[in-house]
Amino acid sequence: MRNQVNMRRHNLCTLVRHLHLAGALSRSSLTMSMGLNRSTIADLVGEVELLGLARQQLPEPRGHSAAGRPSVGVTTTDHAYVLAVDIRVSGLTVARVGLGGVVLATAGRPSPPGHDPRDTVDAIGDLARAVVRAAPEDSALVGVGVSVPGIVARDGGIIRLAPNLEWHDLALAQMLADALGTSTPPVLGNEADHGALAELLRGAGRRVSDLVYLSGEVGVGAGLIAGGRPVTGMSGFAGEIGHLPFGDGTRPCHCGAVGCWETEIGAAAIADAVGCPPDRLADVGGHLQRLDGPPTQLASVGRQLGRGLAGLVNLLNPQLIVLGGYLGPLYRWVETDVRAEMAARSLRIPEMTPRIAMPGLADRSVLIGASEVAFRALLDDPVGCLAAAPRTGDLFGVAQRPAVT
Amino acid sequence: MRNQVNMRRHNLCTLVRHLHLAGALSRSSLTMSMGLNRSTIADLVGEVELLGLARQQLPEPRGHSAAGRPSVGVTTTDHAYVLAVDIRVSGLTVARVGLGGVVLATAGRPSPPGHDPRDTVDAIGDLARAVVRAAPEDSALVGVGVSVPGIVARDGGIIRLAPNLEWHDLALAQMLADALGTSTPPVLGNEADHGALAELLRGAGRRVSDLVYLSGEVGVGAGLIAGGRPVTGMSGFAGEIGHLPFGDGTRPCHCGAVGCWETEIGAAAIADAVGCPPDRLADVGGHLQRLDGPPTQLASVGRQLGRGLAGLVNLLNPQLIVLGGYLGPLYRWVETDVRAEMAARSLRIPEMTPRIAMPGLADRSVLIGASEVAFRALLDDPVGCLAAAPRTGDLFGVAQRPAVT
Repeated sequence: MRNQVNMRRHNLCTLVRHLHLAGALSRSSLTMSMGLNRSTIADLVGEVELLGLARQQLPEPRGHSAAGRPSVGVTTTDHAYVLAVDIRVSGLTVARVGLGGVVLATAGRPSPPGHDPRDTVDAIGDLARAVVRAAPEDSALVGVGVSVPGIVARDGGIIRLAPNLEWHDLALAQMLADALGTSTPPVLGNEADHGALAELLRGAGRRVSDLVYLSGEVGVGAGLIAGGRPVTGMSGFAGEIGHLPFGDGTRPCHCGAVGCWETEIGAAAIADAVGCPPDRLADVGGHLQRLDGPPTQLASVGRQLGRGLAGLVNLLNPQLIVLGGYLGPLYRWVETDVRAEMAARSLRIPEMTPRIAMPGLADRSVLIGASEVAFRALLDDPVGCLAAAPRTGDLFGVAQRPAVT
Repeated sequence: MRNQVNMRRHNLCTLVRHLHLAGALSRSSLTMSMGLNRSTIADLVGEVELLGLARQQLPEPRGHSAAGRPSVGVTTTDHAYVLAVDIRVSGLTVARVGLGGVVLATAGRPSPPGHDPRDTVDAIGDLARAVVRAAPEDSALVGVGVSVPGIVARDGGIIRLAPNLEWHDLALAQMLADALGTSTPPVLGNEADHGALAELLRGAGRRVSDLVYLSGEVGVGAGLIAGGRPVTGMSGFAGEIGHLPFGDGTRPCHCGAVGCWETEIGAAAIADAVGCPPDRLADVGGHLQRLDGPPTQLASVGRQLGRGLAGLVNLLNPQLIVLGGYLGPLYRWVETDVRAEMAARSLRIPEMTPRIAMPGLADRSVLIGASEVAFRALLDDPVGCLAAAPRTGDLFGVAQRPAVT
């Protein structure tokens, strides 16, 4: 009996996961992918519908010539949602994201002056209020995920180091929980790790098991996926690729070393090459997009990018490298230099050549990745998580909430 | 009924895995770790004993004061064994390895001149005959694992490239299967990958989930473990760390690039620094061990080692770095230089500092790793694998087998 309850709970989780990944599915495809019989799937879908997480749609009536019985469609709803927070040097974005990775609302603003933590948290609170405004009163906030351009202590909700925000040992999760009034603390993570996860699940990396997501914001970071799973390292700090000694060893890095890759392909180096003012580093991607043609100095940046990518390929043998942030616009100008350097430096084995792609989720990879980590609690225990989740009507105090008309 | 059969098979596999990992266990510890009741464990152990894979030992009688009932001990036997083959530039080693990773016999010899593939396979055949000579007639050869200092095509049994053996697209698995007369082809793998696996399971990396095994033979390779699982990359080629652009960009590498890490910390660079003759590169480890003190030139090799290790730490955040081959003896002389360079180049976060250790299995890591991949077929299906496995008495043709007296 106890085993049957466990099995049913396990099947419910699996079904919600399938739905979340696909957004919409037919009952017959769920029957096939879960290896259960049709009546069990119908029962489970009924349960998910009762929870408010999905709705069923009868198929359009077809002509008599159509073979077989058309299957019932199952689509996720916006009843349960997460808040995804993307903290960048240039600005803050908060999104309300529903099951299936559906972005229901977003709000953004420039970062507060000096990245003051208190002001940042207050600003995120304002943006959060803005994105839940149109949510149904009885919808449920099931998690908060936050992406940070820095090193986040695993499970601790502490930013250990975010050099470009000048944050050091900042208990951001607790500060945000207090500001948002949520009882379960937000899940913090590195922005490149989140970008990699999102591209794996919903972007350029679907059907790929080994990928590197390179993120160029002001610094350079990487999210690594090996064998379909994130590479975290012992403390969750893996991917600090900007500080690999890929450079020629002459330029000093803000980390204290010389010759870090970031000194060659970081925003400062690129701004230098393209004549972008040094106080506009966070906009170097936009600056690259607005160029009429590549200045000659950019070729050496391209070679340095290719040099490091060849090293990554030799070490990790990825199938796909996704270029996030300004690295995408950069690559468009220097693809030939990158490819030439990679060819010269990678081992001469055809199966080692990876695909290089732009993010399938454009500039939302990191935001979607933050939503994915926020959804984990619901996916692990749909019934328990929904029961404990605050309803939209109760968020941020009733007084602050505008009347729903 | 079918489910019960499947469950029993699953439990049998799990029990054999536990035994293989531990070598010897008590029935009561199996009861605890497998979460099954005592009579089920007693039945399963009885089945494993009938298969010949383990024997049970009644505990020594204790005095009346001993609390509780002493548990029955379960120990692996040498009835099922694998052949582990370690192909190096300097020599060949073949071992007969039993369950529990017990090395039952080894035989070795220098590599044939020019690493001729045909001669190499014949030599391995001779060594294999030598190590099975003392095996019981009815014992079973359940697999062959082979470590190669090169890049091995996944599942194909083809050596794509072994630069220091000058092998290129060599169908070694088939050649060995023909020579050994085994119907199932040997499992080939990269030597550093095998070293990493062995250190994870039985060496310095037990209770560690993120480790890098660095192998210094003539070239430099790495085996990566992340989250407890090997990082293979899309084609199984991950870990070609000798060709990361960690060098200062001046020395040409045999791979065609300049500035590969191998040009700075490879055997040729070390031989140069310590005055080892260039035709004795395969013995550079022995040469390092015989030094009375470190020549001053070795300090810069140490700094280059530290520079690359810092890069690895920033990218992968490993808990443990194991220094295999000549890198162990090298590290003993240059530890201070390595540590200083790592401190200067790693991010200044205490949780990022890994432990650096010598291989727990000394010079047998790679050999034991080869045995682990060879045992997989038995661990996946003990009954089926044993039924199909050739008996020692039937190996290599009866005529070639010396009489057992």
